[in-house]
Amino acid sequence: MSQWHQLHQLDTQLLEKVDQLYDDTFPMEVRQFLAHWLEHQDWDLASNNDSLATLLFHNLLKQIDDQYSRFFLEKNFLLQHNLKRIKQNLQVQYLDNPLHMASVIANCLKEERRILTTVNTPEQGLEEKLLQN
Amino acid sequence: MSQWHQLHQLDTQLLEKVDQLYDDTFPMEVRQFLAHWLEHQDWDLASNNDSLATLLFHNLLKQIDDQYSRFFLEKNFLLQHNLKRIKQNLQVQYLDNPLHMASVIANCLKEERRILTTVNTPEQGLEEKLLQN
Repeated sequence: MSQWHQLHQLDTQLLEKVDQLYDDTFPMEVRQFLAHWLEHQDWDLASNNDSLATLLFHNLLKQIDDQYSRFFLEKNFLLQHNLKRIKQNLQVQYLDNPLHMASVIANCLKEERRILTTVNTPEQGLEEKLLQN
Repeated sequence: MSQWHQLHQLDTQLLEKVDQLYDDTFPMEVRQFLAHWLEHQDWDLASNNDSLATLLFHNLLKQIDDQYSRFFLEKNFLLQHNLKRIKQNLQVQYLDNPLHMASVIANCLKEERRILTTVNTPEQGLEEKLLQN
């Protein structure tokens, strides 16, 4: 199960923390629709490596294009509209600074792992279960 | 069939014109999820009537809350996230100027009708059919 799908199992209070990680600097649509691809790139390394950051920036735009084509075939007008705007915003924000994009994504994924860890530690995991019952 | 759903039957070129009507001043999520309700309010009248505009502004926020609750029950995390941000943005933009919101919505719905009319006039309707075949 992807990290993104693990997060969806959390309770409302922890999901609220995940919710707050996402805005126009890293839109949740990108996180959701490219979950598998995103989790298999080395964003930490890319945060300090301009060539890798540039490559990942262009690959991310390509992944968005592929996803857009799927929504086009499915005639999902709303998601086509959102992805088109998201791609334009990402180009404006990061074309000249892909290192920054890599750093934003690396930090989000790290913060997600931190949120998941709070549930997976025995004491807090128990606390979560008690809260759910 | 709602006006919004009629628009979805259009070809790609005309849908592109619909796409361009929507941005943060009137997000497409609001148009899509509140389609029926939106099309049954008098936005033209509200554009020139402060009391009606204020009432519709608060009713629109209430409709967004209701839709949010549905996405919460469906555990649709992405749409909850988007609706929450949209509601905050609308409050910032229109709380002190609901007349402007009414005017934006009235103009969008009018422009949609204009786009639909270009297909429904006999000559252009024929042209559309020829283009589709």
